Amino acid sequence: MLNYQEIIETIASDLKGVKDKGTVASYIPELSKIDPNKFGIHLVDAHMNRFSAGDAEELFSIQSISKVLSLAKCFALVGDSIWQRINVEPSGDPFNHLALLEFENGIPRNPLINAGAIVVADILVSNLENPKAQFLDFIRQITNDDSIAFNEKVADSEKKTGYHNIAAANLLKSYGNLKNDVDEVLDFYFHQCAIEMNCRQLANAFYLFMNHGKCQSGKTHLNINQVKRINALMLTCGFYDEAGDFAFEVGLPGKSGVGGGIAAVLPDKFAVVTWSPGLNRKGNSKLGMQALEKLTTKTSQSIF
Amino acid sequence: MLNYQEIIETIASDLKGVKDKGTVASYIPELSKIDPNKFGIHLVDAHMNRFSAGDAEELFSIQSISKVLSLAKCFALVGDSIWQRINVEPSGDPFNHLALLEFENGIPRNPLINAGAIVVADILVSNLENPKAQFLDFIRQITNDDSIAFNEKVADSEKKTGYHNIAAANLLKSYGNLKNDVDEVLDFYFHQCAIEMNCRQLANAFYLFMNHGKCQSGKTHLNINQVKRINALMLTCGFYDEAGDFAFEVGLPGKSGVGGGIAAVLPDKFAVVTWSPGLNRKGNSKLGMQALEKLTTKTSQSIF
Amino acid sequence: MLNYQEIIETIASDLKGVKDKGTVASYIPELSKIDPNKFGIHLVDAHMNRFSAGDAEELFSIQSISKVLSLAKCFALVGDSIWQRINVEPSGDPFNHLALLEFENGIPRNPLINAGAIVVADILVSNLENPKAQFLDFIRQITNDDSIAFNEKVADSEKKTGYHNIAAANLLKSYGNLKNDVDEVLDFYFHQCAIEMNCRQLANAFYLFMNHGKCQSGKTHLNINQVKRINALMLTCGFYDEAGDFAFEVGLPGKSGVGGGIAAVLPDKFAVVTWSPGLNRKGNSKLGMQALEKLTTKTSQSIF
Amino acid sequence: MLNYQEIIETIASDLKGVKDKGTVASYIPELSKIDPNKFGIHLVDAHMNRFSAGDAEELFSIQSISKVLSLAKCFALVGDSIWQRINVEPSGDPFNHLALLEFENGIPRNPLINAGAIVVADILVSNLENPKAQFLDFIRQITNDDSIAFNEKVADSEKKTGYHNIAAANLLKSYGNLKNDVDEVLDFYFHQCAIEMNCRQLANAFYLFMNHGKCQSGKTHLNINQVKRINALMLTCGFYDEAGDFAFEVGLPGKSGVGGGIAAVLPDKFAVVTWSPGLNRKGNSKLGMQALEKLTTKTSQSIF
Repeated sequence: MLNYQEIIETIASDLKGVKDKGTVASYIPELSKIDPNKFGIHLVDAHMNRFSAGDAEELFSIQSISKVLSLAKCFALVGDSIWQRINVEPSGDPFNHLALLEFENGIPRNPLINAGAIVVADILVSNLENPKAQFLDFIRQITNDDSIAFNEKVADSEKKTGYHNIAAANLLKSYGNLKNDVDEVLDFYFHQCAIEMNCRQLANAFYLFMNHGKCQSGKTHLNINQVKRINALMLTCGFYDEAGDFAFEVGLPGKSGVGGGIAAVLPDKFAVVTWSPGLNRKGNSKLGMQALEKLTTKTSQSIF
Repeated sequence: MLNYQEIIETIASDLKGVKDKGTVASYIPELSKIDPNKFGIHLVDAHMNRFSAGDAEELFSIQSISKVLSLAKCFALVGDSIWQRINVEPSGDPFNHLALLEFENGIPRNPLINAGAIVVADILVSNLENPKAQFLDFIRQITNDDSIAFNEKVADSEKKTGYHNIAAANLLKSYGNLKNDVDEVLDFYFHQCAIEMNCRQLANAFYLFMNHGKCQSGKTHLNINQVKRINALMLTCGFYDEAGDFAFEVGLPGKSGVGGGIAAVLPDKFAVVTWSPGLNRKGNSKLGMQALEKLTTKTSQSIF
Repeated sequence: MLNYQEIIETIASDLKGVKDKGTVASYIPELSKIDPNKFGIHLVDAHMNRFSAGDAEELFSIQSISKVLSLAKCFALVGDSIWQRINVEPSGDPFNHLALLEFENGIPRNPLINAGAIVVADILVSNLENPKAQFLDFIRQITNDDSIAFNEKVADSEKKTGYHNIAAANLLKSYGNLKNDVDEVLDFYFHQCAIEMNCRQLANAFYLFMNHGKCQSGKTHLNINQVKRINALMLTCGFYDEAGDFAFEVGLPGKSGVGGGIAAVLPDKFAVVTWSPGLNRKGNSKLGMQALEKLTTKTSQSIF
Repeated sequence: MLNYQEIIETIASDLKGVKDKGTVASYIPELSKIDPNKFGIHLVDAHMNRFSAGDAEELFSIQSISKVLSLAKCFALVGDSIWQRINVEPSGDPFNHLALLEFENGIPRNPLINAGAIVVADILVSNLENPKAQFLDFIRQITNDDSIAFNEKVADSEKKTGYHNIAAANLLKSYGNLKNDVDEVLDFYFHQCAIEMNCRQLANAFYLFMNHGKCQSGKTHLNINQVKRINALMLTCGFYDEAGDFAFEVGLPGKSGVGGGIAAVLPDKFAVVTWSPGLNRKGNSKLGMQALEKLTTKTSQSIF
């Protein structure tokens, strides 16, 4: 039987020596202050055995990883009607390109790029009475952890500098693919990105994606078909224009965020989260990707 | 335990009634003559139990499905040096676009689009004494079936009308990413596409991709890491600009060809091949995609 | 000697019979109410002889034609430093594409597409104490006509529905190519587009572009090199992705607006303005383009 | 009255001191051997007065400048039917991009990019008994100079390395926009590019474009409308993705070639040709562009 604890400790110790840890994201001022030497990893297996190494208890900004969680909430709420407003193909392009949106007449290429996640946010704003609170409740519920919260300073920092997202939302509006007020939708979106969690909490949240839709407390949030689709989207679209490379090197459905986190799952086996704030040139956590490549290589486990 | 035979028979009978079976490819004259009502499916499980329905014994032109087999042969021959000349990202574009090739200075986006497969062909021509014969031998070996052969009429038909591929090869040459003579490489490429197999033979060939690199006669052709990578490429790039949709609906690594075939695998579980000559607007077998979606939905099995 | 009066009357009467007059712009609600049968033309020659036909005295919204006037004011104010923030190449693309802006890192392709004109507006806002009033003054001065004014209803209508321009301005801001507050710049931009003039007034305004920078009252606003450059930009970029066609058919530097106006000049010879609210599929006045093609063909006059 | 001789001598002497003369084209081996210090200029005015400076009598490869001459021959032969197979818009893109051709389904953006000129060549091959000889005759006739000839070594050099043009021709063929055999059309095309002329001969050839279609011996080759259109195409499309810049800085219709030549005209006034083999990064003669900018600035003459 695999000794996950030993494996992730070896990985953590191997990566300590890596000199080029990537570059901490600077475009959100609040995020630029993080220590680039932080590294955490947490793996929870199907039987809820837990394995940790490094800074796995330290909170970080989940940023784009939140897109998978908002998609899950949205899919559970409204079902397949989402796909009338968002496509499901990989973008093959950096994460913030509006070009695709124009070429495709306001239909985002997939729900894990910014434009797609803004449409998901719009659907949630349309369907929830109190969108921010109810979305946070959802995350607290699937993690069974009421301590999880927004970092208002980060949300505020994004609002003040998020011109690219404001551009995307207005472009969606110009195509009729944003139903609510631009500011209201972006307020929700900037908050979802500004949720803080640690590796353990995030691995708990992603447990449902490796467990056919059931969270750790046994409640079913998504059916098996919906989980298949969300995992497929993570695999084909979860790493911007490096999605192919992640599938190729790691072989797990996953999602990265510019806060340095990566969450990934091996269905029926485990959910795993890494955190290392330095990003590679494509905007994904440099050491996080290496850690997960080592994990699937050392364990000979992947979806392939 | 799952009754695959019953399931695929139900699928075959359900699909018989579908009126819009798509459009048979017309750009290769030899292929345009096929009866659009043909439908075959063959599944071989990990224990080499076999399940068939419909026209599973009828030969068809494997076309682009051959790209997975030439990639396998090439990867086994030269290892990771392939990736200096070909990228591993989904194209998000129709299968014959040269635009990407220009934007990316002659490095094909992945080995499963035409330009990438032509570079793979170039590497094989460089590394094999008798490329066509040796590639055919490889296929005969992994299927344990010496009856498999090129259809020379189809190869000839492609050579006479394959202006787009001639353009791609010359463009690669202009970027220095084609080492051999254009005509020689294309002669190999047109032949690999013109191999004829039936659903059973092709499922036998793909057995090694679900069996960690070992073919049915027990010989190891690829290591576990190489198989992970080829399966990842099938999942992210196997269906042109419909790759996301196939992952999303079906959830299996697979590859389609304009001859109407689709080969797919569920690692450790099965290899499956469908054949239905009518294509959808994106160039993939219309009923084949539906059959595989039904298979993974009815069995609740997929890589996700 | 050419009898301009006879020629433009013939043109006006010939065009009266044309059945397909194009489609009145509907995306700005205030503009959608205009009668599509309106047609006016006014030509002023180098000696200030004037020739009119049709509805040449009726006010219309000059819209994008204002981009030439704001560029002139800006060029006169700050000189060649404009070209550090805006390029001078034709876009070969529809008038509202943000894609180019991304591909070119926030440097608009030229000052006559929306993104470029928004940067021009930003420069004016930076350099004028009272931007809207002073820009209007400039137009009143070069036309010697104090009756010219903004239509506040149109400006307001654009502000409420101008999501695409809001997107463009925020995208410019995200690249650091917009120095002032987005709302302030757009308020100026929506007002400059909402200026109302008739064919005669607009021909008076464009007189300076055919007269080497000197307006009708003899004041020099631009030097000969600046006028060469503005005329070159009109010729290569004045008609969105139909610029080549306008140069080819008409052979004059000119600029169109979605209000249905077109202003054009033949250096040393004349300035001419047409107005017909119906647009062709590329967003340019359908009959206006035909009228000007007839004018240069009948007179055998063009810059070529 | 302007003293053209003095002006061009000053220009030639001013440019002698410029250190960075650009880079001689290396992709056609035969052209890479040219001395980068060569500089010639020849201007012929409407009255056939001639003004020369520098190496104006030295032969060079006219390359893409030939596209204007083949277009003229083709337009004279078949009239407006050309425009069913070629568009008239600027490309806004480097001179060898196939991407546009794909996006626009095999219709080249204009006749002055390679793909467009290959379609022009195809039309000439279809309509001339002896295409190469008859095209050379046309050039000998409009220049009244029988010494003009192909450089077979250059033609051969291009044939052996012209993979990008072979790609373009095959792509056109795949869209049905090339009627003759690919090799036959390219043989013509490589020969037209390989014509050698000196500045004086080329200025003589372009005299007809400033003289409403009449060559120096008084024969009318094109009507006034056709000349307007060819000049418009030179202005909007004659310098690849630097066309806007040339219009903006120089203000004349013109065409460059990678051999280092530029031919330009001021209708009713003059035809001028410069030759300096060093190219800028956009593939246009570096000193040639500067010389023409100085010419129109010093003379205050341009079409604008």
